[in-house]
Amino acid sequence: MTGLLKRKVRKKEAVTRKKVKILEKRSQTKELVPGTAFYVGEIKTERVKIEEICYGETWYEEKEFDSAKDCISFKERKGITWINIEGLHDVSYIAQICNHYNLHNLTVEDIVIMGQRPKIDIFEDYVFMVLPMHIYDKEYFALDLEQISIILGKDYVLTFKESAKCSLNGIRRHIRENMGKIRKMGADYLVYYIIDTILDNDFKVLEDISEEVEAVEEAASDANWNEAMLKKIHYLKRNLIILRKSLWPLREILKHFEQLGTLFIKEVTTVYIKDLSDLCIQLVENIEMLRDMVSDVHEIYLASSNNRLNEIMKFLTIYASIFIPPTLIASIYGMNFEYMPELQWKHGYSFVLLFMIFIVSGLFIFFKKKKWM
Amino acid sequence: MTGLLKRKVRKKEAVTRKKVKILEKRSQTKELVPGTAFYVGEIKTERVKIEEICYGETWYEEKEFDSAKDCISFKERKGITWINIEGLHDVSYIAQICNHYNLHNLTVEDIVIMGQRPKIDIFEDYVFMVLPMHIYDKEYFALDLEQISIILGKDYVLTFKESAKCSLNGIRRHIRENMGKIRKMGADYLVYYIIDTILDNDFKVLEDISEEVEAVEEAASDANWNEAMLKKIHYLKRNLIILRKSLWPLREILKHFEQLGTLFIKEVTTVYIKDLSDLCIQLVENIEMLRDMVSDVHEIYLASSNNRLNEIMKFLTIYASIFIPPTLIASIYGMNFEYMPELQWKHGYSFVLLFMIFIVSGLFIFFKKKKWM
Amino acid sequence: MTGLLKRKVRKKEAVTRKKVKILEKRSQTKELVPGTAFYVGEIKTERVKIEEICYGETWYEEKEFDSAKDCISFKERKGITWINIEGLHDVSYIAQICNHYNLHNLTVEDIVIMGQRPKIDIFEDYVFMVLPMHIYDKEYFALDLEQISIILGKDYVLTFKESAKCSLNGIRRHIRENMGKIRKMGADYLVYYIIDTILDNDFKVLEDISEEVEAVEEAASDANWNEAMLKKIHYLKRNLIILRKSLWPLREILKHFEQLGTLFIKEVTTVYIKDLSDLCIQLVENIEMLRDMVSDVHEIYLASSNNRLNEIMKFLTIYASIFIPPTLIASIYGMNFEYMPELQWKHGYSFVLLFMIFIVSGLFIFFKKKKWM
Amino acid sequence: MTGLLKRKVRKKEAVTRKKVKILEKRSQTKELVPGTAFYVGEIKTERVKIEEICYGETWYEEKEFDSAKDCISFKERKGITWINIEGLHDVSYIAQICNHYNLHNLTVEDIVIMGQRPKIDIFEDYVFMVLPMHIYDKEYFALDLEQISIILGKDYVLTFKESAKCSLNGIRRHIRENMGKIRKMGADYLVYYIIDTILDNDFKVLEDISEEVEAVEEAASDANWNEAMLKKIHYLKRNLIILRKSLWPLREILKHFEQLGTLFIKEVTTVYIKDLSDLCIQLVENIEMLRDMVSDVHEIYLASSNNRLNEIMKFLTIYASIFIPPTLIASIYGMNFEYMPELQWKHGYSFVLLFMIFIVSGLFIFFKKKKWM
Amino acid sequence: MTGLLKRKVRKKEAVTRKKVKILEKRSQTKELVPGTAFYVGEIKTERVKIEEICYGETWYEEKEFDSAKDCISFKERKGITWINIEGLHDVSYIAQICNHYNLHNLTVEDIVIMGQRPKIDIFEDYVFMVLPMHIYDKEYFALDLEQISIILGKDYVLTFKESAKCSLNGIRRHIRENMGKIRKMGADYLVYYIIDTILDNDFKVLEDISEEVEAVEEAASDANWNEAMLKKIHYLKRNLIILRKSLWPLREILKHFEQLGTLFIKEVTTVYIKDLSDLCIQLVENIEMLRDMVSDVHEIYLASSNNRLNEIMKFLTIYASIFIPPTLIASIYGMNFEYMPELQWKHGYSFVLLFMIFIVSGLFIFFKKKKWM
Repeated sequence: MTGLLKRKVRKKEAVTRKKVKILEKRSQTKELVPGTAFYVGEIKTERVKIEEICYGETWYEEKEFDSAKDCISFKERKGITWINIEGLHDVSYIAQICNHYNLHNLTVEDIVIMGQRPKIDIFEDYVFMVLPMHIYDKEYFALDLEQISIILGKDYVLTFKESAKCSLNGIRRHIRENMGKIRKMGADYLVYYIIDTILDNDFKVLEDISEEVEAVEEAASDANWNEAMLKKIHYLKRNLIILRKSLWPLREILKHFEQLGTLFIKEVTTVYIKDLSDLCIQLVENIEMLRDMVSDVHEIYLASSNNRLNEIMKFLTIYASIFIPPTLIASIYGMNFEYMPELQWKHGYSFVLLFMIFIVSGLFIFFKKKKWM
Repeated sequence: MTGLLKRKVRKKEAVTRKKVKILEKRSQTKELVPGTAFYVGEIKTERVKIEEICYGETWYEEKEFDSAKDCISFKERKGITWINIEGLHDVSYIAQICNHYNLHNLTVEDIVIMGQRPKIDIFEDYVFMVLPMHIYDKEYFALDLEQISIILGKDYVLTFKESAKCSLNGIRRHIRENMGKIRKMGADYLVYYIIDTILDNDFKVLEDISEEVEAVEEAASDANWNEAMLKKIHYLKRNLIILRKSLWPLREILKHFEQLGTLFIKEVTTVYIKDLSDLCIQLVENIEMLRDMVSDVHEIYLASSNNRLNEIMKFLTIYASIFIPPTLIASIYGMNFEYMPELQWKHGYSFVLLFMIFIVSGLFIFFKKKKWM
Repeated sequence: MTGLLKRKVRKKEAVTRKKVKILEKRSQTKELVPGTAFYVGEIKTERVKIEEICYGETWYEEKEFDSAKDCISFKERKGITWINIEGLHDVSYIAQICNHYNLHNLTVEDIVIMGQRPKIDIFEDYVFMVLPMHIYDKEYFALDLEQISIILGKDYVLTFKESAKCSLNGIRRHIRENMGKIRKMGADYLVYYIIDTILDNDFKVLEDISEEVEAVEEAASDANWNEAMLKKIHYLKRNLIILRKSLWPLREILKHFEQLGTLFIKEVTTVYIKDLSDLCIQLVENIEMLRDMVSDVHEIYLASSNNRLNEIMKFLTIYASIFIPPTLIASIYGMNFEYMPELQWKHGYSFVLLFMIFIVSGLFIFFKKKKWM
Repeated sequence: MTGLLKRKVRKKEAVTRKKVKILEKRSQTKELVPGTAFYVGEIKTERVKIEEICYGETWYEEKEFDSAKDCISFKERKGITWINIEGLHDVSYIAQICNHYNLHNLTVEDIVIMGQRPKIDIFEDYVFMVLPMHIYDKEYFALDLEQISIILGKDYVLTFKESAKCSLNGIRRHIRENMGKIRKMGADYLVYYIIDTILDNDFKVLEDISEEVEAVEEAASDANWNEAMLKKIHYLKRNLIILRKSLWPLREILKHFEQLGTLFIKEVTTVYIKDLSDLCIQLVENIEMLRDMVSDVHEIYLASSNNRLNEIMKFLTIYASIFIPPTLIASIYGMNFEYMPELQWKHGYSFVLLFMIFIVSGLFIFFKKKKWM
Repeated sequence: MTGLLKRKVRKKEAVTRKKVKILEKRSQTKELVPGTAFYVGEIKTERVKIEEICYGETWYEEKEFDSAKDCISFKERKGITWINIEGLHDVSYIAQICNHYNLHNLTVEDIVIMGQRPKIDIFEDYVFMVLPMHIYDKEYFALDLEQISIILGKDYVLTFKESAKCSLNGIRRHIRENMGKIRKMGADYLVYYIIDTILDNDFKVLEDISEEVEAVEEAASDANWNEAMLKKIHYLKRNLIILRKSLWPLREILKHFEQLGTLFIKEVTTVYIKDLSDLCIQLVENIEMLRDMVSDVHEIYLASSNNRLNEIMKFLTIYASIFIPPTLIASIYGMNFEYMPELQWKHGYSFVLLFMIFIVSGLFIFFKKKKWM
């Protein structure tokens, strides 16, 4: 195998290599008492990282902890506290922090079960949200999901993430550098900020996918279609299905969040959250449009590849048909009968050749006239 | 036939062997007075089994009965009573117990008619639910349904099941061993516990199916497609249709159950039941997503199998077309005309052979240029 | 033609023979004044039959009339009166009875127009319902509709049917023999009883269709597909379309009927009518599921029949391709050139034969390697 | 070309000849001030016709006018006045009458723009409705739309139509001859009467289409399918799309009309208008059912035409394959090698012929066994 | 390449040349603080143009500015002020004007982000709308979107557009020339006027597309289908998808706008805005209908192109099959056996020729009888 061919093969394989699990193996919890926290999901980061940031209008304070205990004992100053935990497989950490904030045990359970449907639960003294974050690997057409749990209390926000991917560092930087209004607003605005970051990331993912849709669409007009293209379309479709599945319920959740009332959300923040709803609807509509487009490209591809092949088959069949009659004539004059008068004719051979040319031309004209060629 | 081939054939047959009835033969009851209990369904267990467990916060008592009478006369102590009946074909047993608890005769009728749509009926002093349980046989791709009827009264729960499959023993064990909060909570929490067990089992079934979807999807990228694959896709689709049909109404039922108010459900339990609703919606959405994926794989399979076959046909047609012109030439020089000057030429034969090679190469180049090869 | 073949042909025709009208020729009434009763529909029975049954808790009285007049003058005793009219083409009969009970002229018009959408109309002193009854002819795959109009007054029920098919005799027998609660309940319960009988019949029809779906599905795994199968699928689809069309609005109607309030329906009957709603939803969902399944089987059939044919074509093309090169070689050595040195070789013939075998084997191996065989 | 063939060709063309515009060229009004009346649509009748009929319970008076002025000055007597204008291209006529009745200028604009969506506008002292009327040309499969505007005031009704097609003369005749209740009821009943006539006409159109669906369905079982059939299906589909598009919004409009309250509609008429709603829903459902059926027939046609063609191809390929091996054998013994021992054998020729027959029979049996023939 | 061919190729390319971006690259804003105005979109015009027009019932005053400052300082006189800004890439201009009118910073952000979903936001003292404008390039089948932001205050209207395309000059002309009621009405009527102009333009676009649908439909009945046609259908579908995506939410927005109440909209204007809703629904329904039609034409095209090709293949296969048997016969009598008695027969040659003709005729009749020809 030449090097070029090898590379081609490898590239072709690349389209199929990365496997993404469709459903998390939730059934592991089957034998457990409901309400018991048990981590369900792949372990995506080794170390559990706990970052805390407190801030008021004029100050901020930042710390990173190694254990949940330190984190709990730390909280002292007034202001907004945001604790971000990355790595969820060590359930004891999660449980300690959650107990400290008096969270319901169903909440704790939900935090550590990955692959959940986005949801919002309103409790007496906090709001609990589970949201999806998307990581898109352009090279392998692989869309990965990560789950973030957000807890909004009176003056604190807790976020729980599977890994350090899709980082929220940008927000912390804005707090540090006192950019925008974030230091002047409450915990509700921080949650808005986090969700806005998540949705902006989803837009990024969608744009990556839409670029590929455009590429596939453009390729559809060339003749260089192959099975790899088909697979690309398949992966695009699949990713859009997954994306839609996780963003569809988000609309309702944000709508719900918007209508929470003044207990958790100040009036001045409501307009920002309404904006999130709009963003989310726009995302979902774009996904739908892209799905329509991919389906359409798929159809076009099938039709045009079919067309091209049929053209070839037609050409070759006609081509073969033109050769059949002269072959019969030649066979006839190849017979060994003793009495075949034509064989003795002086110009028999020339006549036969002319006759063949005549027949072939006739067929040619006939097929042309019938618009078969 | 070799052993290998035989095994192959058997495996292929396996995909089609197990037959699942689509609809229960409900029409048997046509001639009966409405409201009369008459068992409709396959008899899945021979012996009717009646298990009773009573429990309070500090104690529990467990018993198994042979006849309905014993069961009825037994109930004495205060606390939560849960009676679980397995095997529904002996209507008299069911009727005696139901009468003891003053159930409406429509309820009794519903308990013994299998294949019902999931439903919830609220009566004055009890709530009646019919729910589906799913048993999935991975080997034969067969999804079987079993029906469970749950009656929630003030301080008792009755469950009626067709057979011992999909057992609820885990719950009894938790009661015995006082795990979780179950002994501290009321009958409503027990019902939550039962439904949670049922939904966890459905997740298990869905995961099994999703694994097969993944397997089929992976196979779609290989060339080893055959009719068995097509049948596998068919069974996956069918199972997802059935699963969706029985889980779709569950959402509404749980929503309804959630909103029952304080008569049957204590406030502390409401949040748990809301959690069931979320689980159920997640199940239905996963089913939808899997259906989309299976359809997609089906399309990809059809397209790629079509593609491959077309490629072969194209190759062979081109290949045949290249051989046609030299055959005509050979036939021409096989004619027996007396005056064919070329035949006497010294290098006639070589010339003809060269000419043939020339034509074949020409066609080869032509087809290559047209990107047909 | 042999007898077997003839039978085959006849069976094949059978699938297409019976024709069912899609829409009733309602436009006959175009020139009439709206509100004028004019029979629209096929005349399905020659004689108009009027059956009356009166009953109370302890007695019943039954009579059959020849003319509408007798029927009207008869009514004397207290209790529930049920008049069942079979045969609607004699509008004068209908009109007389309807006038006697003070029915609105739009009601009379609706009674005699067949092929209507199921509907419920609530008037001041009666409720008017139009419902479909289905007759399924398994042999010809023909689904026929019949229309029944039910009028529920304070203490009377009128039913109008096109013919004696789908009889309601079972109900009259239950009244006579005082089975169940029917004699103890009011006119509303009688209506429940009638609708329950109709729905039970629909279940029967659906079971017949589901049996055929199962049969078709099973046949899909065999190779014996033919055009008759395709037609069977077509008829199944069509019947399910018709069935759905007439049962879909029934749900709403029963929901409406359920919420009628205490004027027409006693509280004790409400739970029964709710049960009808459930039955109806179950019917509709089963229809939807069967439609999905039939579509699926159709797709599988198309795919697998396509597959099989393609396999044959592939085989034959490969087979032909293997024969082409030796034929060319034979033609070459059939040429009559004077100077063809190979022809004089002692083992020329054997060499050529060996060469042919060599080429054929080579092609064989090549095709095998490419997994084309 | 023979006469028969010519007729065939002409008939085939007939299917495609008549062209129906999809959208009215509304954009002509782009440069106009909104609210200016400007006729948009084809001019379908040359003369504007104004017919007026006044009637009370015991009398009627009818007149036809040449100019709008005469019409306006005429109105004197008490009773219900109905003015019917046919031909809308002369906007000045329309404007004069509308001004006389104090209609809003948006109403006037809507009256003269054809191709509008059906709609209802409620003004302070009148109700304005735009409804579609359908004309179906069975010969050319052409569905044409005409727009009727109805204005219902306290004691007058105005109707504006594009042309004299779909005439409302039947209603005038009923008024003249005092048939039914029309003379005894108010202007609202007259509007009911007009809409009922329109819907009855739609039923007629639908019946015509359903007859063609039946014809196409029946033809689907014969072998005589051709491209004309395909086009027929296409036209049926298209007509059903158009019909649905114009009847779909009608449901809502009639629902709206029904709920107008006592200002415009007397209580006694409400039940009649509810009947119109039912009719309209029935129309829409029938359209949906017919669409499903046409789609189904289309699929069946494609499948069965594909089937038939594949059968032919299969037959011919097998047939050709049987001839290939004997041809090779004959070619071999046509070679001119000097040393071909078989050629000298006495029975060589017979042996070869027998061998050929043997091979052909063998292939025949092989193909039969494989169920390819 | 001849000139004709070249032109053909160019025209074919034309169908694919113009590329339209599917999604705006919104993710550029990812790193920004939410609420910061940053222009997202292609820069479509170089110069920012600010046009202001003030008017009352009897006067108007018009001015064009170079900088935002001039514009702000200008406003003095009473009456309605309309400022139209074309070119949005210079965010500072936008910000200055917006600050002058006290607009929320989210509004400013929305104005400069292109590719947004149409939306309406109601603030305390103004209404903010984002609407799409469509530009259709008939030659390249390219549908381009432009975004217009409209702000409706008490006595002012601001409009922000990307470029000078889709101009609103017509409205300014109407104000200048005092046409219609515009000078007599308020700012709300001006907004109605603007939206009406936008929708009229959309109607124009839809009519252009519908003309192409008609053209494609007509071409579908001819035989001159080719890949360019397929691409045309693809572009039509795509444009309809995009159009629907941007008009679908408009319905809700206009419905919302209609129900704004008396704060921003005077009662006399409400009826006009309701008219906009109707127009918008009509647009969406027409789009849906056109989509159905295009899909239908696509199907018809595929079916008929398939049909035609199959006919050719069938013809050629039959044709080839007729030639196969005589070729075999000729080959047989071309064998070189010494003892072939027929070869010595006097009329052997004639007999064989006759036999060939006989066989060919037989096959001909057979195929005719089977209706394969």
